[in-house]
Order: sequence, then structure tokens, then C-alpha cells
Amino acid sequence: MSSAAHSAPYLVDAAPDERTDLLGAFHTVRGASTALTAHLSLEDMMLQSMEDASPAKWHLGHTSWFFETFILSHYVPSYTPFDPTFKEVFNSYYVSVGARHARHARGLLSRPSAADVLHYRAHIEAAIDASFGALPPAALDLLELGLHHERQHQELLLTDLLHALSFSPLYPAIAQGDVPRAEPVGNDIWHRFDGGLASFGHSGNGFAFDNEGPQHAQHLTPFALAGQLVTNANWRAFMADGGYETPLLWLSDGWTCAQKESWDAPLYWHRGDDDWQRFSAYGLIDIDPNAPVCHISFYEADAFARWAGARLPSEYEMEHAVGDQPIVGRFVEDGALTPLGGHALYGDVWAWTQSSYAPYPRYKAVEGPVGEYNGKFMANQMVLRGGSCFTPRGQIRASYRNFFYPHQRWQMSGLRLAKDI
Amino acid sequence: MSSAAHSAPYLVDAAPDERTDLLGAFHTVRGASTALTAHLSLEDMMLQSMEDASPAKWHLGHTSWFFETFILSHYVPSYTPFDPTFKEVFNSYYVSVGARHARHARGLLSRPSAADVLHYRAHIEAAIDASFGALPPAALDLLELGLHHERQHQELLLTDLLHALSFSPLYPAIAQGDVPRAEPVGNDIWHRFDGGLASFGHSGNGFAFDNEGPQHAQHLTPFALAGQLVTNANWRAFMADGGYETPLLWLSDGWTCAQKESWDAPLYWHRGDDDWQRFSAYGLIDIDPNAPVCHISFYEADAFARWAGARLPSEYEMEHAVGDQPIVGRFVEDGALTPLGGHALYGDVWAWTQSSYAPYPRYKAVEGPVGEYNGKFMANQMVLRGGSCFTPRGQIRASYRNFFYPHQRWQMSGLRLAKDI
Amino acid sequence: MSSAAHSAPYLVDAAPDERTDLLGAFHTVRGASTALTAHLSLEDMMLQSMEDASPAKWHLGHTSWFFETFILSHYVPSYTPFDPTFKEVFNSYYVSVGARHARHARGLLSRPSAADVLHYRAHIEAAIDASFGALPPAALDLLELGLHHERQHQELLLTDLLHALSFSPLYPAIAQGDVPRAEPVGNDIWHRFDGGLASFGHSGNGFAFDNEGPQHAQHLTPFALAGQLVTNANWRAFMADGGYETPLLWLSDGWTCAQKESWDAPLYWHRGDDDWQRFSAYGLIDIDPNAPVCHISFYEADAFARWAGARLPSEYEMEHAVGDQPIVGRFVEDGALTPLGGHALYGDVWAWTQSSYAPYPRYKAVEGPVGEYNGKFMANQMVLRGGSCFTPRGQIRASYRNFFYPHQRWQMSGLRLAKDI
Amino acid sequence: MSSAAHSAPYLVDAAPDERTDLLGAFHTVRGASTALTAHLSLEDMMLQSMEDASPAKWHLGHTSWFFETFILSHYVPSYTPFDPTFKEVFNSYYVSVGARHARHARGLLSRPSAADVLHYRAHIEAAIDASFGALPPAALDLLELGLHHERQHQELLLTDLLHALSFSPLYPAIAQGDVPRAEPVGNDIWHRFDGGLASFGHSGNGFAFDNEGPQHAQHLTPFALAGQLVTNANWRAFMADGGYETPLLWLSDGWTCAQKESWDAPLYWHRGDDDWQRFSAYGLIDIDPNAPVCHISFYEADAFARWAGARLPSEYEMEHAVGDQPIVGRFVEDGALTPLGGHALYGDVWAWTQSSYAPYPRYKAVEGPVGEYNGKFMANQMVLRGGSCFTPRGQIRASYRNFFYPHQRWQMSGLRLAKDI
Repeated sequence: MSSAAHSAPYLVDAAPDERTDLLGAFHTVRGASTALTAHLSLEDMMLQSMEDASPAKWHLGHTSWFFETFILSHYVPSYTPFDPTFKEVFNSYYVSVGARHARHARGLLSRPSAADVLHYRAHIEAAIDASFGALPPAALDLLELGLHHERQHQELLLTDLLHALSFSPLYPAIAQGDVPRAEPVGNDIWHRFDGGLASFGHSGNGFAFDNEGPQHAQHLTPFALAGQLVTNANWRAFMADGGYETPLLWLSDGWTCAQKESWDAPLYWHRGDDDWQRFSAYGLIDIDPNAPVCHISFYEADAFARWAGARLPSEYEMEHAVGDQPIVGRFVEDGALTPLGGHALYGDVWAWTQSSYAPYPRYKAVEGPVGEYNGKFMANQMVLRGGSCFTPRGQIRASYRNFFYPHQRWQMSGLRLAKDI
Repeated sequence: MSSAAHSAPYLVDAAPDERTDLLGAFHTVRGASTALTAHLSLEDMMLQSMEDASPAKWHLGHTSWFFETFILSHYVPSYTPFDPTFKEVFNSYYVSVGARHARHARGLLSRPSAADVLHYRAHIEAAIDASFGALPPAALDLLELGLHHERQHQELLLTDLLHALSFSPLYPAIAQGDVPRAEPVGNDIWHRFDGGLASFGHSGNGFAFDNEGPQHAQHLTPFALAGQLVTNANWRAFMADGGYETPLLWLSDGWTCAQKESWDAPLYWHRGDDDWQRFSAYGLIDIDPNAPVCHISFYEADAFARWAGARLPSEYEMEHAVGDQPIVGRFVEDGALTPLGGHALYGDVWAWTQSSYAPYPRYKAVEGPVGEYNGKFMANQMVLRGGSCFTPRGQIRASYRNFFYPHQRWQMSGLRLAKDI
Repeated sequence: MSSAAHSAPYLVDAAPDERTDLLGAFHTVRGASTALTAHLSLEDMMLQSMEDASPAKWHLGHTSWFFETFILSHYVPSYTPFDPTFKEVFNSYYVSVGARHARHARGLLSRPSAADVLHYRAHIEAAIDASFGALPPAALDLLELGLHHERQHQELLLTDLLHALSFSPLYPAIAQGDVPRAEPVGNDIWHRFDGGLASFGHSGNGFAFDNEGPQHAQHLTPFALAGQLVTNANWRAFMADGGYETPLLWLSDGWTCAQKESWDAPLYWHRGDDDWQRFSAYGLIDIDPNAPVCHISFYEADAFARWAGARLPSEYEMEHAVGDQPIVGRFVEDGALTPLGGHALYGDVWAWTQSSYAPYPRYKAVEGPVGEYNGKFMANQMVLRGGSCFTPRGQIRASYRNFFYPHQRWQMSGLRLAKDI
Repeated sequence: MSSAAHSAPYLVDAAPDERTDLLGAFHTVRGASTALTAHLSLEDMMLQSMEDASPAKWHLGHTSWFFETFILSHYVPSYTPFDPTFKEVFNSYYVSVGARHARHARGLLSRPSAADVLHYRAHIEAAIDASFGALPPAALDLLELGLHHERQHQELLLTDLLHALSFSPLYPAIAQGDVPRAEPVGNDIWHRFDGGLASFGHSGNGFAFDNEGPQHAQHLTPFALAGQLVTNANWRAFMADGGYETPLLWLSDGWTCAQKESWDAPLYWHRGDDDWQRFSAYGLIDIDPNAPVCHISFYEADAFARWAGARLPSEYEMEHAVGDQPIVGRFVEDGALTPLGGHALYGDVWAWTQSSYAPYPRYKAVEGPVGEYNGKFMANQMVLRGGSCFTPRGQIRASYRNFFYPHQRWQMSGLRLAKDI
């Protein structure tokens, strides 16, 4: 994988005209997935460290299964499945498709082998090539969905792998080259917004997941949003001030969780002899004070915000702010993730919001099995906005809603503060 | 307790002028609490069936502790605590007050005895009487808060007791007299609302908890709200149609929970030889088809709504509808809970909404220990609106926000459908 | 209860001629049970602090159920059960008798009330009185069994109550009077035994449980047995030497258990400001250095023995030693538990052995429901020998086998060392 | 691996003169371990399906670590460890050696790779070759111990692999060739023994683990031992007679376990459309009625014996019977496992005994880290005697004590009945 984690694959795999060259985009995305595993051993590709995470090999298989199940088996009469057992093995959570291999046992799939999975990928790609010209519009829509689905799994593949390797006493590095250093962030900047009635949700131009719509009005009260992400230096100040030992800073559920899990720092931080270090794609590295803090739960983000006399932004505020000024543009520029305002390449992270993941007004899940894609997860999770250095460029857009449980920490999750004004 | 569960105490304990006669209201509320336990044995009063619930005796003690801790010990220099150990024994979750007796071990408090607790109550009431004239305005505000706090615990005392008795192989009845029968509900009525920008949250007249404000604008899309609660007959149709066996009707977390807990009917329903029955305040009784279904979780409510081709209302929609027409008035009238549109006395229930329990815009928890009252629970819970037959009348108002976890079923929780129009 | 825990009831309730006056012995034992609860409140009598323990009220009911189920309902045609629901409510673990109330929910039995249970007891006693003359020999055997069964429950009633009260922040004392002080133990004495082939198990004179037989030969190698129990002073030396922090002293399962449960002292020991104290029948008291250590698990006993360069005795060694010299006599004498060699009244405890609880050669459980009494528990438990100050005198005999799981600590369990010679 | 599971490697790796050619035996055993994995993929070698089991790769590494830690690092001054991180990675449970990689996370060791482990093996073997001539007697003793240790892990490697593959929806076969068929067992034969005082434990000739001694006398009562193992046909009769639904046949803990785990057949049995099948080294195969039942827990074995009106033998009875007549010889003969009395090659299994795993009289664990080998596991486990088709021939001897927890089923465990006479 090496430099894949922070370089080219993410930045060239999407283009404004991918709908006009859907087949080309398909191959670009497929290639990017495989490239992520190019430097992994067969053994690395099989790791599953918890039920929430999946092996790299499984991600490669499941993203292929998606095209096979929803397009090839459905719209291509002559299609022969690569292996009839894969229908169950690579089904993630689609009840309407049939039985699913137990999620916690994905790491026990020594068979099919990684080689089998790569052959499966090639088989699917050849079948799409052969049938592409004859696919009806509905199938093309699903093809585009599958392409975005696969990009989501690219990021998960990386975060899952990082989690699995974090259990190794060898602290293996999966990225090559020098550890990037973040530039110092300057003085705190607060962007002010007047609020009022505004429009939210995807506009209808270009691709979006169903949970990004329908577009609708929402009323905001005046607020300010921090120009910078909270950094590791900020987080150490929180820790030094007893942030992890002060229950009054925490939500009740958050405090219970933090005590049970003995949290005293972000995930992957290790207390070394002299100072904290953290496990990362570069192995065990020093804490970069200027880099955004990462691998924190919603509960920690919320406690930090309370400690700082601020609060988390709502997902509406984040989306509104992007409309006002190109937040995204600050991180992704000229083919490389470069900072505007100071954040280092490696550290760009998803920002927790205070918004529960819920359906937008008049949201309807689509009919059929793909209807299970998003809607059934709209409970108990919190929305994150932004995107991380592991996020393919084509996934970063103003209306994109990422979501995880408030206790989860293995994603590239950080925070950005907001305030009432 | 007998008829306490559905009669006088709730209906006379509040009055529009309670602020002008705060001391009178205090005694009325205090008396109502004790009256709820008048027919309970010492043994009944000690029951704790799960960590979420507390013994009746503990509720009587804790509500007294509230006045002692926040008013007497703080504002009355000459006050001597009744028993210094009670500071810990009856502290529920106020970290800033100090140590708390372990929540799951409240049922192990054979000491203090119920007699001790009743003496404690009398001591507190005498001390408030003696110091009332000299209390500063801030203390009077806390006194009013304590009064509403005690009303909340009156409802919890009843639901907790019902839960504890449900484990008895004897199916004891705690209410006396005949089981009330619900009138048949007529044809379904849908009330239509145009939506638009409207105002929500407590207006500032009369008492409200901090989580009911600040008042703020919110934009609603047009919707319809059912004129009636979902009944047991409706629920049996859902069951008969395989509602509990159809994963596609459920949120993913809901389905997992339902499978793990082997749900196949509402809480307290028992499959008898001939037909279902349910455990209630009247012991084991037949299912009344016309009564609102009760003791269902948010997950079940959500699945039912999907099955019915509808959805749960948002808390804003519920509050908006009340403003438009006096929903509350339909249930509480002339000193008795009577139906408007058909619901039986006993069956009036809280309605789950689709809204996560979250702070309103610009919400700030108050300073000091009372700041722990509501704010720290604003995660992972869902809002219920309405009120039940166990709810003291003084607690039922348009802006009142009740909240529980989506899997919880031991409250008087039912549902009312909504639709987009 | 007060002084009941360490005085008269235990010492007069058994007599060598109880078989000749079985009815008299029956009433003596029954009265002793009730006397144990004489000073308890209704609330104390309902406490259940864990699944392993039962409420005092339940013990009173269950011991009555035993006579009702196995004698009255079986041998007395005219007998009418006191309450048909009690068959299930007070069945402990007799599968062949029918359904059982869930063990963990015994503390939720506010009904039947303690008064109901006392009436039940009187009903059973009257029925035994009325039918005694006509009972066949098999029923008389069961009556004698029930009498010994009830004595076992007397000890459990006290240990269960102590456990339940240990959760009270008030540290209530259930015994009255001054805390007894143990006399200093003199120099260590080791009794030597030559071993060889010897006979073990109950001889057939007087009552014994089925698990105490059949009598059989066993070969012992030469050994020495300590003349004294391990004292609290000994235990503090073990603690001071890092006994709880040295894994090499422990069995692997024991170490895992100790870590999981965070053991750093015997059960009920509290680290006070100045020194350790322990919760006891006298409330929170200082650690008496001369008293036998109590409330330790088998795992702790085993680790201590290894630390001391000794080992635990086998149950055969304990029984053999009793035969050689009257160990029992040292503790129970002249109507009071007095020390021979130095142990204080309160501290006499059961001694863990290294023997797994297993059937003796040719053991057969008796036919019928009483066959479930002992045999089905012969797995995963360890034998204790001796008896404690909570043990009715009639239960203390050379062949008596007590048994608990190796992690359990709430019984009056201590240890006595042995050595190979 | 293929035929490795049931053929040559086990039968030629031991010889009566292995002490005289210790280095030769070392290489034979080492080669046999590697041969077991010859046909496994890198992915198969990494599987860990539960905390009790370990990956094949880890077994290969750990058995090398044993020689490195206890011999090379200790007795060979010039020795350089292959990789300093391996000291922790491959330490199983030796607390005195230092930190251990978490047992449940052995399946997450993608690094070191299988190739690294094979290089490690070669490194260790070369180092032993180079230093063998200069090793002192104590080191040679440890070398012999390590050789037997490695044989134990050969069997575990196979049982662990079988367990891991049982989670695969593909039912992969790891053995090649036809499924062996067992010959029908003839009429039941019972061997009678007079009992009396006899000698037990290893005699001192040849190698034995410390837990097999010291030799000592034990008294046995007359008994009979079945000449044949319980077969699958016998087990089906037990199932058909409601064995898994009759609590009175079971130990109390066994019944609780069986209910919790929903046992209704041996491990690996699958209810097919027509009949039961079982997962085995040959994939999913039909149940051979004549083969010994396998993969049952102690609890199931005990329940079966009670159902059959018999009991499990003690470990002493098993050892005594071997002395009387060559039980081992019946299964292992002329370089192949052949039946005497009817049992098929594949089906020979370990037999559960009624004996708890406990120290023999005067047992002392050896000093030093190797002292952790056996002694600390002497709690809560039951002894098995005999050996299975997965057991290297060199491990099968009259005094060998295998031991597992009573609920465990993934070993090659069956049963042989005994009776009192």
C-alpha cells in the first residue's frame, strides 16, 4: 500500500465528467482499490480485529459482490456467477439478498484466498465490460452507486487495516517515506454566519447517496465556526487540565463509556517512557502538536468542546459554512492535500457534529435491496462531516453525511469547534 | 396504591396559580407521593428489578434529598441534616454533590427502612415550612423545580413498581376496582398541518424544565398527524402480519435488539392458553382491542409505522399540533382522564417521536449542580411527547420533553402515526 | 437476630438421641430457623444480593416447602397445600418437582410476604404434628433429611444476609454485644500422620448425607496438618509480601479471576484511612490479628499455601486427622465455641481442601427427586471441611463434605495448612 | 497437510531409543511439525477461531521459542536471538519469562509472516545443531522436554485448524483421499478388574511430564471397563431417547452449559436435509455409525454414561487397565492405526475420565520457568486418557494425562464406559 494512503489514488480517481465516462471511472475506482493492497501480504489482507472492521480481502470481495448482485445477476441474463458460495460470503448486511456470513467471522475466511478474490474482481470487471453497452439506465445508476460504494470501502479498508495492525507488538508501518509534518496553525480564526432560513441537502447535480436528500429548508441561528481543526496540542492541553478525569465535562453515557474503556487519550496513543506517541500508518510516531487530533470518539469531542467553552457544530452548520466558503478547497488542491491555514497533509480528519443521523424530511429509502443501503442505520449514530486524508476525493462534497456510533474511534475522526453568537 | 394509579392525586396536584401558593403546592405534591405508596407493603416498597428502575422507597427518599441538598443545606444555615449518610444513599446521579450509592444496588437498601424514609420526608417538610418565609428567590425557584422533579418521580415510581411486580409468579394487582374498558375508536382521522416556519419551546409563562427552551424557530414541511393512538387491535394486526419476523421493517439496531431479547409482543404480554393477556396494574388482564398499545420500545414503534406506510412524528410536529388544537385537552378533562375520539382512561400513553433528544439551539445547562438535571443525558435517547395516565396533570404541557433509550419498554410508551403530505 | 449468629440456637439444636425424639428435634430446628430472623426487619428479610444467595424469607419458605413436597404431599393423603403457587416459588433446583421461580429473582418476591411465609411455616408444622404418628419409615427418613437440610439453610441464611448487608453504605450490625476478641495463637504446631490405607466416609451410625458415603478405603502418604487455622496476621504478611501481585503463586485460573475481580484482600475487607477494616456481623470492625482469616476463595487459599511453602490438605487428610484427635472438640465445647490452641469464638471457619467435590467410589444418588440433592453438583466445586461459627452444631461431623466453587468467597471459608513429610 | 492427519508422521517420529539419538529425534519431530502445514495456505496458517485455539503459524513459532528461550538463550553464550520481538510474540503463558502477546490476538499476527516463522525454525534448528555437543545434561533434559512439548502442539495445531475451518461456509477438507470407514464393533465386551492397592504414575523409565509422577499407591474398588469406545450409533440412540432434553441425566453445570450453548448433538454435527452430517478433516461427511463418537464435552460424556446405566472411568482405572492388557496396542500397530475389536482408523479418540486434574501426592512443580508447564493448570479441568488419531505415537503411554475444561469440545474427545462390580 505504501504511499497509497496519502497520495495519488485518491486524487485522480474522480472527475467532474465521470458520469459521461462511467466505464472509465469504474475501472479507475476498481484499480484504486486493488492498488491499496498492492504492498500487503496475504496475511495482512486477512486481518479482522473486531466485528466493526473487515479484512482487506473481504472489502475487495464485497465491493465486487455489489456489482455482481445488483447489476450482473439482475440485468445480464447470460451472466454466470463466479462462485455460488460468494453470494453469502460477501453479503454485508442485505437481508433481502439472503443469508450472510457472520460478520465477526470474516477474519476466518482463509478460503476464498486472496488470489481467488483477485480473480473474482477480474471476472466482474470483464463481465461489466462485456455487458456495459447493453445495460439499461437503471443498471447504470446502480453502477455509479457501486462506484461510490467502492470508494467508501477504500477508506474503510485503510481504517480497518490500521486498527488490526495496532494489535501487533511490532508496530508495522504501512506507509512509506518520511512522516509528514504539519505546519503550525496560526491564531484562531472564527468564521461568523448569520443563520436564518437556508437550503440543505444535495441539489440534484451529480451523484449523491439517498441520505443526502431531499433538499429542504432549515432555520439556523447565528453561529461561528472555527477556521481550524482542534490540534494535538489543543488536545494535550485538555488532557493536562484533567479532561479525562472530570465527569462534569462529559455526557453521562460518554463518561460511563470512558470509564469502562479506561480512556485517557485518543485511540492509538501510547504512553512512552518520555512522552506520548501514537500508532499510525507510519508505525509508532511522535505526536505532532500541529496536526489535527484524530481517532477520538464523539463523546471525547463533545467533552473537549464543553471544556473549551464551545460546542460541536450541527451538520447543518457545517454544510452551510461550506456553501459560504470553500472549506473543502482548503484541504484538497493541485492534486495533493495541502493546508490552507495550517493543517498538515496527514492530519485532515472527519469532524464530529452534534447531529444525530436521521432521515431528512420526506426521505424515502429507495425500493428494493439497495433500499437497505442507508436508511436502516438511522438510529443511535452521529453525523460526521468533512472527509479525511483516507477519503477518496470523489467522496468529498458539501452534502456528504458520514455516520458512526458515538463511542467509535477507529475512523479518522476529529473535531472543529462552533459557537453561538 | 389502588386507584391512585389513575385517579385523584394526579388531577388535583397542580393548579395554574401554584406559583402564587408555592408552599401549598409543595404540600400537595408531597402528599400525593406518599399516597401512591399507601397500600404498598414494606416489601413492595423495596423492590428493584433492574438498574433502570428504583424502589418506591428510594423514590420517596430521593425526592426529599433533592429539597435537602439544593435548598435546606444551601440556604438555611440552621438546618441539620436528618441523617448524614443520606447524602450518598439518595443521590441519584449528581456527581457534583459527591459520592452516590450504586444505582443497581438500590434494592439492597433494607436500611434505611421505609419508616425511616417517611420520617425523613416529615423532617424535610417541617424544615421547609419553618424556613419558607426566609427563602430567597433563587431558593424558591429551586423549590418549584423540586416540586416538578417530584412529580416526575411519581410516574417513575409507578412504572418501576409495575416492572418489579411483573417478575412475580403471582401477578399481583396494585390497582383496585374493575378494569376500565376503552371505547371503540372511530374511523381514522388525520389532522393536516401546512408546516412552514414556526416557534417552538417553552414560552416563558409558567414553569418549564431547562431542556424545553430556549424558544426558537424551526421550519416544518407539510404533514398529517393521526387523531388517535395506535391501539392493541392495530398492534395485533402487525403481529399477525409477521411484524416481529420481518427484518426489512426494522432499523438495523432495532432488529438486533429484538432478536437478542426474543421480542414477539409488547412488554408484559403473555401468551396464554387461548389468547394473549397482559400484566398491568390490574394484574393479568385480557388485551383490550380499543386501548392504545403500551410498553413498546422506539424500535417497535418505528417498525410498526413503516409497516403501516407511515412514520413517527417529530417532536416539533407533535408540539406544533398541540398548538393548533388542544391535544392535551382530549385526555385530561374535568378531573378525570376521559377520551376524545375514543381512548379509554387507562390507555393514554406517551408517544415516541423520531427526534433524538438533543439540546435546542442556544441551550445552556444552568450553572451549579442542578445543571446536571437534563443536559448530560442528551445522547442516545429519543423524545416522547404527550403524557400517560400515570403522568401527574401538572407535568402535561405542549413543550414537555420526555426521553428514553430506544430499546426501553417499561414506561407507558405507545405511538401515534404521522405522514408527509 | 442479634446474638443468634454465635450463640445458643446452634448449640442446643442437635443431640445424639434426636432420632429417638425426631418430632422434638424437628421443632427445635424449626424454631431455631425462625429465631435467626427474629430481629430482622421485613425489608432485611427480602434482600438478595446475587444469584448465589437467597433472601432470609425465601430460606424460611424453601425449608418448609421441602417438608411439604417430599413428605406431606406424598405421604399424607388428606394434606392440602398451603398455597398452590408455592410449589414453584420455593422450589430451589428440583427439576423433577416441576417449574422453579427464577433463582436470580428471589429478591423480587415481595409477595408472598414474610407474614405469609411465617403462616406457611406454622401450617407445615401443624400438619407434621397431626400426621407424624402415621408416617411410614420412608417418610421419617425424609423428615430427618429435611431437618438436616434446614440446618444447612440456617448457615446459608446468615452468610447470604451478611453478603446482602455488605452493600449497605451504613454497615449495619446484625449481631449485638461486644465484638469478641481472639486469643493469640501460640507457636505453630504440626500434627504428623503416618498415612497408609485407611477407611473414609460415614460409618452408618447416625445421620449423614448421601455424599458422605459409601465408606471406603483410601491410601494416604505421610503428612502433617497445622494445628491452627491461618490467621489474619498471617494473611497480612502474605499481602505485605505481594501475595496478590505475584502471579507465580497462583493457579492460572485463580490469577485470571483475581485480576478480573481486582482482589487485593479477603472479601469484606475495606481499606480505611489508617488501616484495613472488615465488614462483619458486628458491622465494620478492626482486623483481629489472632482470628482466623475468613471469606477467602479457594484460589486465595491455594496461593497462600504455596507462598507459605505448604499446601492445602486433601479432604481425606482432614477426615483422617479428625479421627486421630478431636479437631471438632477444640471449637465446640460446653455450649460455646471456645478455642483450643487459640482461635477466637467468631473466627472459626471452614477450611478449603485441595479435593474436588466428586462422588466416592460406588456412590449412587438415591432414587426419586431427593436424588437431586447432592449428586448433580459434583463438578467444578472444591470440598471444604470443618464448620464455622455459623454452622449448627448438629452439622459438624468428621465425614461432612461442604462444597463451593473455587472463586466463591461469601461463605465462612478460611484455611489450614498441610505438608508432605 | 492432507494425509498427515492420520498417517506416517505420527507413527515414525518416536522410537524407544530416542534418548540415545536425541538430536535425530529432535529433527524428526521438527520436520513432522512443518510437514503438517505443507499443504496449508498462508491464510490457513493464520486462522484463530477462539481464544482457546492458536494459529498453525503460531504453533510453529511457539515450539521454536521454547527451544530458544529455555536452551539457547540460557545455555549457549554465543547465541543471538533470531528476532528480539519474538520473546513476547511467541510466549504462551510463561509469566516468569516476561510479557506475552495477548492470547486472543494471536490471529492478528500477520507479522511475523509464515515465511519469517519458517526462517525462525531453521535458525533454531541450526543453532541446536551447532551447540548440541556442548550442551550440559540439564539442557539435554530440556531438549527432550521441548521435543515432547512440540508433539503436544502438533495435535493442537490440527484440532485448532479444524475448529477454525469449521466456521467456513465452504466446509474445506484438509485431508486427502477417501474417508476411512470404521469396521462394525462386535458385541459389547467388559473387562473386569479386582481393584485393591496398586501403583500409579510414571515408573521412571523413559520420558514423562512432571504431572505423571511421582509414582504412588492408590486403592481401587472392583470395576469393569468397556472394551470399546462409545460409537456414533450409540450416541444417536442417546439423542433419539431425548438425551439432550432430559435435565435429570446431566450434572447441574452441564445442563446449564448445554442450554446456554444450545447443544443438541456433538460439536461439528450439522442437521442436513435428510440426516445429520459432521464436519471433519475430510470436509462435511456422513456420520459413520461404527466410528467412536468424537468432539463431545465432559458434560455430554457424563450424561451419556448416566443414561447408559454406567459411569465414566477414573483416570486410575484407565491406567490400571492398560497395565493389565495393552490397550494402546489395540489402536497403534505396524505403523498404522488399526482396530482391535472394531474401531476405525479415523475414530480413535481421547476418553474423558471422572477425575479432576489434580497433583499426584507429593507432586512438586520443577523450579524455574518450566515449572509453569503443568502445575498451574491443576484446577477446574478433567483428565482424559488414551490418545487420538491426531496424537503423535510418542505421546501415547499409560501414564499420560491429558486435561481440558469440562465444557470444551474441540479436541478429539470421546468416551469409554466403566461400571462398578
